[in-house]
Order: sequence, then C-alpha cells, then structure tokens
Amino acid sequence: MLIEQIHEPADLKKLNQRQLKQLAGELREEIVKVVSNRGGHLASNLGVVELTIALHTVFDAPRDKIVMDVGHQSYAHKLLTGRYELFQRLRQKGGASGFPQMDESEYDAFTAGHASTAISAALGMARTRDIMHGDYSVVAVLGDGALTGGMCYEALNDAGQSGTRMIVILNDNDMSIAHNVGALSKYLTFMRQSKGYLAVKQGVRTRLSSGREAAHAVLHFLEKCRNRVRSLFIDDKFFDALGFKYIGPVNGHDIKQLTRVLLRAKNDDKPLLIHVVTQKGKGYTPAEDHPDTFHGIAPFYIESGEQKGEHRLSSGEIAARQLIELAENDIRICAVVAAMPNGTGMDAFQQAHPERFFDVGIAEEHAVTMAAGMASQGMKPYVAVYSTFLQRAYDQIMLDVCRNSLPVTFLIDRAGLVGPDGATHQGVFDLSYLRSIPGMIVAAPRDVRDLKKLVCLSQDVNAPMAIRYPRECEDLGPGIQSQREFQVGEWELLSSGKDVTIFAVGRMVQLAMQATIELMGKGISAGVVDARFVAPMDRKLLLEQSWGKKLVVTAEDNVFSGGFGEGVLEMLNKENFHTPVLTLAVPDEYIEHATIAEQLKACGLTAMDISNRIQRKLKELSEARV
Amino acid sequence: MLIEQIHEPADLKKLNQRQLKQLAGELREEIVKVVSNRGGHLASNLGVVELTIALHTVFDAPRDKIVMDVGHQSYAHKLLTGRYELFQRLRQKGGASGFPQMDESEYDAFTAGHASTAISAALGMARTRDIMHGDYSVVAVLGDGALTGGMCYEALNDAGQSGTRMIVILNDNDMSIAHNVGALSKYLTFMRQSKGYLAVKQGVRTRLSSGREAAHAVLHFLEKCRNRVRSLFIDDKFFDALGFKYIGPVNGHDIKQLTRVLLRAKNDDKPLLIHVVTQKGKGYTPAEDHPDTFHGIAPFYIESGEQKGEHRLSSGEIAARQLIELAENDIRICAVVAAMPNGTGMDAFQQAHPERFFDVGIAEEHAVTMAAGMASQGMKPYVAVYSTFLQRAYDQIMLDVCRNSLPVTFLIDRAGLVGPDGATHQGVFDLSYLRSIPGMIVAAPRDVRDLKKLVCLSQDVNAPMAIRYPRECEDLGPGIQSQREFQVGEWELLSSGKDVTIFAVGRMVQLAMQATIELMGKGISAGVVDARFVAPMDRKLLLEQSWGKKLVVTAEDNVFSGGFGEGVLEMLNKENFHTPVLTLAVPDEYIEHATIAEQLKACGLTAMDISNRIQRKLKELSEARV
Repeated sequence: MLIEQIHEPADLKKLNQRQLKQLAGELREEIVKVVSNRGGHLASNLGVVELTIALHTVFDAPRDKIVMDVGHQSYAHKLLTGRYELFQRLRQKGGASGFPQMDESEYDAFTAGHASTAISAALGMARTRDIMHGDYSVVAVLGDGALTGGMCYEALNDAGQSGTRMIVILNDNDMSIAHNVGALSKYLTFMRQSKGYLAVKQGVRTRLSSGREAAHAVLHFLEKCRNRVRSLFIDDKFFDALGFKYIGPVNGHDIKQLTRVLLRAKNDDKPLLIHVVTQKGKGYTPAEDHPDTFHGIAPFYIESGEQKGEHRLSSGEIAARQLIELAENDIRICAVVAAMPNGTGMDAFQQAHPERFFDVGIAEEHAVTMAAGMASQGMKPYVAVYSTFLQRAYDQIMLDVCRNSLPVTFLIDRAGLVGPDGATHQGVFDLSYLRSIPGMIVAAPRDVRDLKKLVCLSQDVNAPMAIRYPRECEDLGPGIQSQREFQVGEWELLSSGKDVTIFAVGRMVQLAMQATIELMGKGISAGVVDARFVAPMDRKLLLEQSWGKKLVVTAEDNVFSGGFGEGVLEMLNKENFHTPVLTLAVPDEYIEHATIAEQLKACGLTAMDISNRIQRKLKELSEARV
Repeated sequence: MLIEQIHEPADLKKLNQRQLKQLAGELREEIVKVVSNRGGHLASNLGVVELTIALHTVFDAPRDKIVMDVGHQSYAHKLLTGRYELFQRLRQKGGASGFPQMDESEYDAFTAGHASTAISAALGMARTRDIMHGDYSVVAVLGDGALTGGMCYEALNDAGQSGTRMIVILNDNDMSIAHNVGALSKYLTFMRQSKGYLAVKQGVRTRLSSGREAAHAVLHFLEKCRNRVRSLFIDDKFFDALGFKYIGPVNGHDIKQLTRVLLRAKNDDKPLLIHVVTQKGKGYTPAEDHPDTFHGIAPFYIESGEQKGEHRLSSGEIAARQLIELAENDIRICAVVAAMPNGTGMDAFQQAHPERFFDVGIAEEHAVTMAAGMASQGMKPYVAVYSTFLQRAYDQIMLDVCRNSLPVTFLIDRAGLVGPDGATHQGVFDLSYLRSIPGMIVAAPRDVRDLKKLVCLSQDVNAPMAIRYPRECEDLGPGIQSQREFQVGEWELLSSGKDVTIFAVGRMVQLAMQATIELMGKGISAGVVDARFVAPMDRKLLLEQSWGKKLVVTAEDNVFSGGFGEGVLEMLNKENFHTPVLTLAVPDEYIEHATIAEQLKACGLTAMDISNRIQRKLKELSEARV
C-alpha cells in the first residue's frame, strides 16, 4: 500500500506517474471505506483525488498555502498530510474534522465550513506575503457551487483589480450540492463543452469560405490569432472582466496534465483562475450515479451504496410535507432554498409545486432579500435553510424582512447542537441573533406534532417568523394544548411542580421532562413549561409559573449570551420577580464534532445533568440562606 | 415653477421635452437647497435627476415597481411622487427619510439602506408577478458602487438563469462612495470609453446575417476599427455570462435618449441590464469637483460649498491617527475598509501607509475574511466599518475570525444611535450580535482618551477585538485609571454611590455621570462604573459595586435583547446576587430618523431620563417591600 508510506507531501514527490495513479486508487478506496463507516461528504471528495495529488506534488505545503473552500474537497488532502490515523475517526470525537481546520494541522491553511470564503482568505495571505516580502504561493481551491456565493465575486473583484499574485482553482463538477443553479453555471458548462466552440468556428469558416478574397482574409485573420480569437469569443469573458487570467478547462483526473498546468501557474505573477473539470463521485459507481445523494451521507454499505439503518423522516421533510399541503390551496406559498433542496427536505416541495420553488444557489443573502421582495407583493415565502448558514443573512433578515414587517417565514433546520459536522455548523446561535431583531417571531417546536402546528400557524401570521428545529424531532405524544390551536407567543404548561419550574425550548423539553422524573425521586417537585416561543415570550405563563417557586430554570440548546435564558432573566427582572433562576444553555464556545449525545453531555444538558444541576443549585441557595 | 405642479408621476407625462429639462433644473435646485440645510446625500442624487424623470415618464409607478438601491438616488424620486413638503424636512424627525421607505410612500417599492439589495428584491417582485399572472414592470436602479457587493452578483446569477423579465439599471458614475474599486469598475470604465459601440454592434450583426458580401464588410470594419475590435466582442461579456442582455452605455443626462431606451426595454421579456452613465454632482459645481466630499454631507453654504459649523475631529479620525502612529513601528498593522475611507477616517491611514491600506469595495463579508486571511499569516489588520454595515459580516466574524482566534481588530464607527440616517443605519445591535460570538472582545470607549487607549491596547491583543464608538466622542477629562494602563476586561470606577451603581457603556458614561448629579439633589447617592468592556466583563468590579446596593443600573445605547444589561443580569444571577437591577437600553424597535438628542429622549436615555427612571424604580421597590 502506497498510502501508508505518505506521511507528508514531500513523500509524494518521490513517486512516478504510475505510482501516483495507484495512490489515487488507494485514496479513493480509503475515502469510501471511512465515509461508509462514519458518514461525511463523499462525492465531491472522490472528485478531487487527482487534483489534490497534483497540488501537493507541485506546491510545498505548508510553506505554500493551499486554502480549501469548505470541506468537501479536503479528505484526500488530509490523508496526504499525515492524518491517516486521525482520518479513521472522521467526524468522531477526537478524530479528524470533516473540514479543514487550522488547529488540526499546519497543512490546513485556513478553517472553513461555510462556502465561498477561500478566495478572500487566500487574498489576505497573498497580500501579507507581498507586504512581508515572502515568496510562497497561495492557492484557493473551490467548487463551482461555491462560486454562486457573492463573497467569491467580491474577492475576485478585489484581487483582480489589485493584480495580486495568486491562483484560484475552480473545481467544476457541475453539481454544487444538488444540481448547480445560476447563469454562471450554464456559462461554465458552455465552456466545458469546447467542442461547441469548435463547431461554431467551423461554421464561420464554412460560411466565410464561400466568400471572396475578403473572406479568406478574415479566415486567415481568425486562424492566425487562434488563441486570441478563442479567448475573445468565449473563454475568459467573465473572469477577464474581473481581472483574472483564465486557464482551462483542464481534465481534473489527469495528474500529468494537472501538474503541467499547475507548474506553469506557479511561476506566473498575476491572478490566475484555473478551470478544472472533475466528476463528482469519480471511481465509486453509486456516487457517480447519484452524486447528490452521496454529497453528504450517513454510513452506508459499500457494495450496494444503501444507507445503513432505517430512514427516519427528518424534521425538514415533515415541515415540507405540511407546507406542500398548505400550498395546494394557497397560491401565495412558495419555497426558497440556498442550494440545499435535499438537506432541507424541500425537494418534495419542488416536485409538488415546481413553479413556486426557487433554489438560488449558495446565496443566503440574496435568498432572504429575494423572499422579502416576494412578500412585499403578496407572496408568503418560506425560506428553508440551516441555522448556521442563515448567519450569512443576518443583516438582510433585519433590514429587508423585519424592518418592513414582511411575512417571510424561516424554516430553520439543523438548529441547536448538530453532532459530527462540528464547530462550523452548530446551530447554537440562532436564538441569540434572531431574538435581538425587532419584530421577529422566534419559535421552536418540542416535537413533530408541534412542528406541523407551527407551520400551519405561520400561514396566517402576517409578520416575519422563524421556526427552528433540529434535524430530527421526536414525537412526544399529545400535550395539554393538543386539542386546541395555540397563538403566537403562547407557551404550554406540560406539568406543574411545587418547587421548580423548568422553561424549556425545543429539543430541551423532552430532556426537561425526563429530568423532572429524576428529581421526583429526590423529593423535588419540578414542572415543565414548553416555551415554544422565544420571542415574543408568554409573560403571563412565565410569571404564573415562576411565582412562589424555589427556583426557575431555563433550558435551551443555544449559547448563553443573548439566548432565551437571558430573555427570561430580563423579563422577570422587569417585573420585580426575584425568584432565583438557573439558566442552562450551551457554553459560549465553539463545540467540536462528536455525536449529539456527546455534545449534550459536554454542555451539561442531558436529562441527568439537568436534574443534577437543579439539585446543586437548590442546595447552594439553601446554604446561602443559612 | 413646474416642480410645484408635480403631485404624482402622471403629471410628468403632460410635459414636453423642454419642460422636462426645466423640471430637471428645478429638481437640482431644490435638492441642493434642502441638503444644504439638512445634510444628506448630495452628489449621487444630483446625478440621477434626468434618469428619475425618464423612469417616471416611461413607467407607471406604483403599479410598476421601481426599486432603488440604497437612498443615494431617491431624492428626485421623492420630489416627483408627492413628497415635496415632506422633503423640506429631509432626515428631520417627522420629515422624509433619506432612504426609500415602504411605509413612507407607496411609490417606494422597497425599503433600502444598505447597498446591493435592489436586484434581489426586484427579482422577488418579478417572480411574484409571474406566479400571480400580473403584468407590471419591475426595475432595479443601482449605482456602480453597489455592484461591488456580492449580493448583486448572487441576484444577477439567479435572475439571469431563470430568465425572469426585469430591468436592472446600472447608474454608473464611476465613483461608488469614494473612488470606485474593483476590477469590474475598470471594466465599466473601459465600456464607457468605447464610443460608437452601439452602432458598431448593430452594423456588424446586420452585415453578418446578409451572407456573401458580409465578409467584405466585416473585413473592412475590422481593419478600420482595429482598436475597437476588442470592445466589439467583449462589450457584454460580464453580464452576458450572467444571463443578462446588456444595453448601453446610455447618456444619463439625455432625457430623450433615456426615454427611448427605457421604452424599448419595457417591452422586452428578458432580463436586461441598462448601463447608464451619469456624472456625480451634476449641475452643482462644488459637488462636480468634489463628488466624494459631497456624497454624504452635513449642512453647507450653497455659494461656496463650505460646511456650516466648525469641523470637529470624528472618532474615526482620532482612531486613524492613533493607528497611523502605531503602524510606523509595526509593519503588521494594516487597515481594511469597505468603500468608506473617508467616513471611517481611514483616508488618513491610506495617505500615510498606502501599501498597507485596502479598500475592498462595498463588500463587508470579503473584507472580514480577507482580514482573517491576513491575520492568519502574521498581520494585524484593523477593519474600519460602520456598526450597521458590519451586520453583513456576522457569519464571517464568527467563523473566519473568532473561530480561529485571529487577531483582527474591528474599529466600529457610528455605533449606537446615529441620528438623521435613521432606522436602516442605527448601530444599536452590535453589542448583541458581537457579545454572542465566542472569543470576541467587545469594548466601547467613554471618550476620546479611552478610544486612543483602546486602540493602543489592541496592538498587543492576540485575539479578535471590537472597539465600537459613535461618530463623535467627547473628552471627559482624565478618569481615575488615567495614570495607568488598563487590561482587557477591566472596568473603571468613576464615582462611588451608597445606594445605586450605574454600570454604563460608551456614550452612556457621561449621561450616567450627569444623572448622578441630578440624583444627588434628590438625596440619592449613585456611583458610576465605566463598563468599557462588554465582553469579557469585569466580574470583580461588578460584584463589588453591586454588593449591598439598593439598585444596580445598566445603561447602554444598544437594544435590550442580547445586550449588555442582559449580560449583567446573567452574571449577577450566576453569582446568586439578588440586588434589583434596572436595565436601561434602546427599545427593541427600529428607531426612525431624528437628531441623536431626540432619539436619546425617545428611548428614555437622557441624563434626566436616567435620573427619573432610577427614582421611579427605587420608589417601586420600596413600595413592593411594604
């Protein structure tokens, strides 16, 4: 096995072409094996194996900076940079992160989790090099999907203008995460199919050939300046306008060709863009056939490509089903996603109501303002997006949606702790950043029943509203309110306690209920309120259930700062309630990859933790009183 | 006066060309007059007078949707849509907003304050029209500066791909706010300069399609216009790649030509981009000569163009001076701005250290990640930006800077209440959104002395740090700590009180000190702590000065939700302190334009308000005790 002999990129340089090819095969096998066990991003990683080999052959990392955009292209890179062992525990606690991470390896020039950042970071490095009189190379590697994000364009525009020496590698697999969207994607396709270009040229030649001398002169002119004409007509029109020299398309599975092009690029002193064409899923048939299914995937059987374990309906799928139903009788309802039709479950909506479904690319800012534009003219748009990615549109939510009180609903998936995707994907800030936006209704269902009810409720809410939920919701059975509808801002008393009331949000409701059972065994009578609206809060129920208690507890899977607990403290304080409060929340830190259960444990948020922390606090309070 | 006869756009349609020209002159005079009294955005508004007339002649607003990007182009539009009276009190309390605002007029199709949103909003409207089977036109009007923002590109990419019928008008004055940056700006300039290009393009098309003789004509043309051949083929290369049909350049001061082009565009059913060339400041010589000075301006004398009142050094200028000094002996220090070298005071840094100054365009996301890239390689970048615009980069601050603990410093100008720029520009959310980001140091100086000290302190802080301040800081004289340096997280006790301690942030320190004098007159002994670090907080001093008091007060010019006050509540609660707390902050609302003094009053945050609210709370507490 060659792969076991590669401890650092320098080892690569000793291999010949045949061996590099063999190594590529081994890398693929390793990636398929590990991802089939651990889950992760498969298809895009299989596509960039040869590119990664070529990069590490030509450049000298970590001296040269290779900046990977998101992590969908980093697995081969990790395997080639001394992380073979770590990679075996990919996305597990203590194992390799699924993304490039500066604190994991010096070979990861920059940490990345959200798309479209690589060119910006690389430009910053290149500028530093020039100021400090360094002479290393800086290479940004990004997928064509990332190119639908506006940041890339901001960075290209800036780099192109300043003429800073850097290389951008556009890994074009024509897929983004689902099928790529956007005009530029069409344009790239056009460029890939350079046969089309040849045909056009051929056509011109035929037509012109039948002319007189003049025609021959034109033909001569065209032929003589073949390269120039070619670039004039097609190749570089977009990137040239941005000040980048375009090179490509290059076959992304031909190590020799890649190496040659990269070597040439290394010695250039202008901003270059190399257009590399790869196949998503390359080398593993199920992934080649279904690259979107194999983009991010749970553990699967290598032979069949089938997922291990049974498929459970995700929260997103449940929300989408409800929305499809509502949309049948309500033409105002439409869905907007940012390159995640599958992840958000909204592919079902796309099937059911294709004319009211919009995938705008990895472009959350645009998604939100576009939805606001729709709402301003009478539509009822639902923006389905992961909690962590919605951070990109904080300003647009505030000024384009909420400032105008427009009825855009946000279906926020992957809220709270997210497990193996780790620090860059935690949805533990949304309660804080949404709650501080005036006019935003922020809801979190405790389970699937409530999720459906909230989606139904939102239909008649003529205001901005966010519904945030984890990837999977439980079914906790009917609550007390189940027989009737609830209103915006209405919480639900699930059980009464004499000593303690736990006000819990979303996923924490179930854990809080379990904790009360524990507490009962210790002689402590604790009740649970489902605080399903973080904004506005249910003042009446909060005061009622805080009154006369020894302790009020808040529980949320959001960070402390700016979260639900602080909101409760503020409201109780305003009302001159001085019942002691115990706030339970995610620490104000970046929580690394592990299982959700492990992360809950690390945050002290399991049912047992809740019970123990309440007991401790009660003890502390009674001691303080003495 | 024609201007007084225009009550709605329909009145325009009765005027002939001569009268329209006269009207343009009157509009300019009116704009100069009002802005000279009220301050506002002058140069860009003078540039779009004819364009606005042409738009309202050709289109039927409010049926047709005219979406203005930011407000720098909305004054003539306001004057032509029944807001002559309101415009007299531009940016004053109760007067016209300086920006398009949906709740001010039905002619303002969308509210805008931050750049680059118009195409997204317009696309949303156009899509709604198509779903609802409407037949109105949708026109987005944006400056070339806005085009440096990534959102525009996301929207163009999406619209171009879907082929939605809409018109984008690119008002190209080659200026952005300061001089335009970015490769695309160069490209637009190039296009502007290729005169006669429209005729050329049409000519070639006709000739090519007419067969045999075509060849001769083409050859003749190529030889004759050798230099123009390039523009012939690349004229629309950028927008074409994005799926937009490019029309232009059009003279933006020729109403007749504009009208003709717009009429033709109105009847097209594809996404179109019309490139209109205007002159910033047109018709008012001082603004023509100094368009950047007259971009956003305080009241001035019409004759001379000189500003009324004396120029006071802004906080930004003070911070910049300090930074220039530090940079002389520290090559790591560099400055990054997003199209605001003047507004942030960083033009001085540009002069002093041009090779370490980077203006990246209206591209806050890129600015932050680029700075993170620099910091990752040993630079010490200072990103100077307005509080409200930094909202655009919330995600990048969190994941690219703070997740990696990179020493990027944010010099956050226009923090807190901002006065006449109003709701879309308030800097009253930064404490909330920054405080919830793990690892971010958040500081607010009480005055210029502290501002300078904080800038100096930041030089040795190897972590992300934000220093937020209003446009103008007072000089409050030396405090108790003035003889020695303070550390990160260290507050300062300015005066002790027996009954009450006010923990005040930034601008509120001075007001709190004044309030204590009021309170003294009422027999209440109140002290003041300058809580100059909102994160991390000075736990020791907080507890010390809360201990045994009747009341703890927090004062900040940030919203309640997620703000400093909630942080204090959280910390006191964790420590089992049950001293009553009165939190004073900006209400969780959008605060409209008025003077800062009026806004402070409306928020109940003047010195007198603070004193009164403390007295009321103490009374409430003593009654509750009875």
